[in-house]
Amino acid sequence: MPRVTFHPAGVTVEVQPRTTILEAARQADVPIRNDCGGQGVCGRCRVTIRRGHAARMGARHPGRPAGDLACRTLVADTDLEVSVPRESRELEPEVTVNAAPPFPADYPPSGSIVEKVALELKPPDLDDNAADGERLIRHLRKWRPGEYHIPLAVLRDLPVRLRGAQWRPEVTVSAEPRGGRVLHVGPAGAVPCALAAVDIGTTTVKASLLAPRARWTAACYNSQVTFGPDVISRIVHCQRSETRGCRDLQAAVVADVNRLLEALRRLAGLERDDIWGLMVSGNTTMIHLFAGLHPAWIRRDPYVACAARVPPARPEDVGVEINPAGRVFCLPSVASFVGGDITAGVLATGLADRERVGALIDLGTNGEIVIGNCDFLVCCSASAGPAFEGAGNASGTRARDGAVDSVQADGAVRWKTIGDRPPLGICGTGYISLLATLLRAGVMDKTGRFVAGAPGVREREEALEYVLVPAERTSVERDIVLTQADVANLIRAKGAIYAAGSVLLRSLAMDWPDLDCIMLAGGFGENLDKDSAVAIGLLPDVPRERILFVGNTSLQGAVLAAQSAESYWKAGDIAAKMTYFELSTHPDFMNQFVSACFLPHTDAEKFPSVSAGGAGPARHGSGGAREGTL
Amino acid sequence: MPRVTFHPAGVTVEVQPRTTILEAARQADVPIRNDCGGQGVCGRCRVTIRRGHAARMGARHPGRPAGDLACRTLVADTDLEVSVPRESRELEPEVTVNAAPPFPADYPPSGSIVEKVALELKPPDLDDNAADGERLIRHLRKWRPGEYHIPLAVLRDLPVRLRGAQWRPEVTVSAEPRGGRVLHVGPAGAVPCALAAVDIGTTTVKASLLAPRARWTAACYNSQVTFGPDVISRIVHCQRSETRGCRDLQAAVVADVNRLLEALRRLAGLERDDIWGLMVSGNTTMIHLFAGLHPAWIRRDPYVACAARVPPARPEDVGVEINPAGRVFCLPSVASFVGGDITAGVLATGLADRERVGALIDLGTNGEIVIGNCDFLVCCSASAGPAFEGAGNASGTRARDGAVDSVQADGAVRWKTIGDRPPLGICGTGYISLLATLLRAGVMDKTGRFVAGAPGVREREEALEYVLVPAERTSVERDIVLTQADVANLIRAKGAIYAAGSVLLRSLAMDWPDLDCIMLAGGFGENLDKDSAVAIGLLPDVPRERILFVGNTSLQGAVLAAQSAESYWKAGDIAAKMTYFELSTHPDFMNQFVSACFLPHTDAEKFPSVSAGGAGPARHGSGGAREGTL
Repeated sequence: MPRVTFHPAGVTVEVQPRTTILEAARQADVPIRNDCGGQGVCGRCRVTIRRGHAARMGARHPGRPAGDLACRTLVADTDLEVSVPRESRELEPEVTVNAAPPFPADYPPSGSIVEKVALELKPPDLDDNAADGERLIRHLRKWRPGEYHIPLAVLRDLPVRLRGAQWRPEVTVSAEPRGGRVLHVGPAGAVPCALAAVDIGTTTVKASLLAPRARWTAACYNSQVTFGPDVISRIVHCQRSETRGCRDLQAAVVADVNRLLEALRRLAGLERDDIWGLMVSGNTTMIHLFAGLHPAWIRRDPYVACAARVPPARPEDVGVEINPAGRVFCLPSVASFVGGDITAGVLATGLADRERVGALIDLGTNGEIVIGNCDFLVCCSASAGPAFEGAGNASGTRARDGAVDSVQADGAVRWKTIGDRPPLGICGTGYISLLATLLRAGVMDKTGRFVAGAPGVREREEALEYVLVPAERTSVERDIVLTQADVANLIRAKGAIYAAGSVLLRSLAMDWPDLDCIMLAGGFGENLDKDSAVAIGLLPDVPRERILFVGNTSLQGAVLAAQSAESYWKAGDIAAKMTYFELSTHPDFMNQFVSACFLPHTDAEKFPSVSAGGAGPARHGSGGAREGTL
Repeated sequence: MPRVTFHPAGVTVEVQPRTTILEAARQADVPIRNDCGGQGVCGRCRVTIRRGHAARMGARHPGRPAGDLACRTLVADTDLEVSVPRESRELEPEVTVNAAPPFPADYPPSGSIVEKVALELKPPDLDDNAADGERLIRHLRKWRPGEYHIPLAVLRDLPVRLRGAQWRPEVTVSAEPRGGRVLHVGPAGAVPCALAAVDIGTTTVKASLLAPRARWTAACYNSQVTFGPDVISRIVHCQRSETRGCRDLQAAVVADVNRLLEALRRLAGLERDDIWGLMVSGNTTMIHLFAGLHPAWIRRDPYVACAARVPPARPEDVGVEINPAGRVFCLPSVASFVGGDITAGVLATGLADRERVGALIDLGTNGEIVIGNCDFLVCCSASAGPAFEGAGNASGTRARDGAVDSVQADGAVRWKTIGDRPPLGICGTGYISLLATLLRAGVMDKTGRFVAGAPGVREREEALEYVLVPAERTSVERDIVLTQADVANLIRAKGAIYAAGSVLLRSLAMDWPDLDCIMLAGGFGENLDKDSAVAIGLLPDVPRERILFVGNTSLQGAVLAAQSAESYWKAGDIAAKMTYFELSTHPDFMNQFVSACFLPHTDAEKFPSVSAGGAGPARHGSGGAREGTL
């Protein structure tokens, strides 16, 4: 077998011929940066072949030579020497920060999952010389009835701290189902009790710092992507090594969370120890990997998670950098493929509080659908892939400054970017808008195939692709394109979502028009055009006012649960109440899916407004225009 | 200031003149073995002065030169060089092991504070693919209803372990007030679930291993005695250094507990990891020091403990060597000077279960008294000192093989030792018996003074002492004696106990004869003679059948609480129910105490059977006789 030696690590590994350099590096434990899961998309895994001959796979970035991407270069029959430059060794994914409305000065509110309580204790005397611990609990019960636990570590300091505070301590208490847990006792008014909420998506990790006047959210790619783009490939990685696999993935995502928290803390001027509670949302596999639970059985029939409810943990148990005496909470899952992110979504949207039946569709790397009201909730999961999160596509990116998030045609094709910055890629809303635009303009047919010779369409590597922005107008110095493979990805994703919803509705003897509202959640961007989403068949053709874009409800739910212990308990009730439908063995799903892999659908009668050629209202973005291509 | 250099440590320290070598060694952090708290009694702290002049205090061991005891040698004005021989550097106190009736083969019983439960789980299928954690909890609830907590560390292994056990796991569960905590999941029937119970006395630490067929208890001196003989001096040591003081004491007693457990494990053929639960009893200060809680405020008005209830802890939190996933429980205290040992005593004796009012007197280093029944419990503490535990007296020893535990006179003075071994010292029951015998024989008057010229009485260092066993008949090569200082110690101790009980009774408008029973607890030996205890005024002159010797009820209560979670909760109820009387500020206590410092009492009418010269029935031990001394 050929051997590959990596420099400057100096590590050599024997691999099968036709292994990618990236895979060889994984086997050699040489870290190579890779944000797209080895799909030749992100361009982060550049290496230099110093010696030997390697086989170059076709480039997916027309603007860049692909030969130096580790994921697109195959080991041939000879030994190789490979240099990994510094920028490819740097594994930390970029953190982007977005402004949000600032929290009030007294945020987080009373009733948060961890809060500071100012107490005034009656000092002991000979008539009442109860022990310090019992005295504190007695006063906590006056503040809020319940059972309180003071861990040994807090008890040890308690006498000094109560007296140091002249019996007027500030007590940091985390909420427990029947009372609270004392995390700290200190002098009054010293520091804010900041919390944090995190949404761990398969592709993107997002965080909010919940502190007085804080106003930022931070996001980065989930750097587990180095081990695979989706949950299944990551679970497979866990199984490779009983001991290492899970730890690799846990370390990767915990490092992401820590980076986000650090960025947010820096903006808010807070220290690590100011954060006392962390509320984590995410799909079942992500929460497993974050908590260090083995996910192996999630992907095997009968799809069993290690735990639906992860107990509150100490920061050191998972490695997150908040106050070591703080608490880490995870939102409860429903099933192996309906996780805490969906529980959070139901919480954030109030779906389970309404009398009328509605739907929540969460378009992440998987697509999950919940239908229900205050009486019932049913849910399922469809393997949609990360196309709408901007991952896995040739020019895909997260919804961030410079991401194309809207495309329209009025003679010329016009695009708009988030923050009106020079374009660097296309985010989820941009893809939906682009597909609808190209469909209407006849650049693409109803099966998703580009029309050869249509304006903007060119041939690359024996396939057609559409050039949205030429390299010279981008900030990334390469063409921003939509490839035929991208279109297939997007159609599969939207088809799976629509089919999954249809199956759930049929089981309830309902149809899409019976729903009071359809809430579309996800990190795909804020400016989704409803008509475009209907035009490509991602959403059903219902009156547009019933369609609501609700943003990242996983993060919103985590924020809610962090700032209200009541909401956290309620998330548990929601998870217990949801009935899960397993689609992988459902007899109807595959039929529905095949019918839905069409733009908008094989059954045109389901989409009357689209068949009628009704276009959405013209939207005038501030972006540039590719003139003369239509 | 003179400097003292210790060899072979090579450490030099500057001290004030007239500091003892032992104290200088403490300041220099040079460990010197010392079992009696620097009282010149145990003879363990031998050193050699290599250079310089030291002042020798009077010997307390006639049979041994005192000049080489570090605790009896004072630094003078010149620098010293001191050698500490190996046997004085060896800090581990001797562990003695006593046989007890063996436990049955299925011990500890169901309902123990930690137990192993054999479960048969329904394996998951597509119709029931609940997560492993939730499945386990569901089956635990069928076994015993309640709330169950699975810590993250156990969850992490759970999928592998459940499948490894073919869904028939053995689950180790510790009891919690409303359910349980899963400590371990493993294959069925692998190992016994052994528990341990420990009584941490100020002077003696005792342990029982609760395992199938185990039959031993182990005891050693509490090696905290190096830092002081009683709780007050140890608290003072804690205050010397905010950070070091408590840790010194915690390390010392935890090492004792670990040594006892190791000795017991070895006898039972068990490993460290076979012990899953440890139940700890002891007075409030001992439990504070064991758990690492700061006891400083216990000794200061208004005498406030850090915690009356120490929460269940992980072994690593305190440093005990049992299974790292196991649990450590402490019995709850009532007040700063009525600790978990007394709660345990009430539990073990059933005092709180009876309709008739009784008393429990625990004669440890402090003396605590509880009076009550199923309706009420009152308690108080009297500073008795360790005299009846065999510490602090010239020839004192714990109740162990070779300890003189009974003395009588029938012409000659006859003594008996535990195990009929050559005598090495006098234990608590021996002292009580000896005092009564010498009093009756006229060797000592009612104030406790030796009668000069009486048989066996000799003068040493300007004081009288009584020689019970000459050096040549002992196993320790020195005379076994009762000094005038010993007698004063013993009278103070018994006077404090009697006075404390009288104060409690007066507060209840009762007197000793109103009590249905008087239970005397303590580690002073099993063979206490009731008439002797009454003759010296330790116990009141009530019908003898009302007096019961109940042994070490602190350890018994810890055993009960370990083998029955119900009993552990009940101990909490007992502690909550007890009303504490503070004697230090009680107007009546000092009067009562002064009256009781007499043999048996200043008010002879309180002891009619003693005044009448009624002696107990002659008891014929198997021991030796000192003939011709009466």
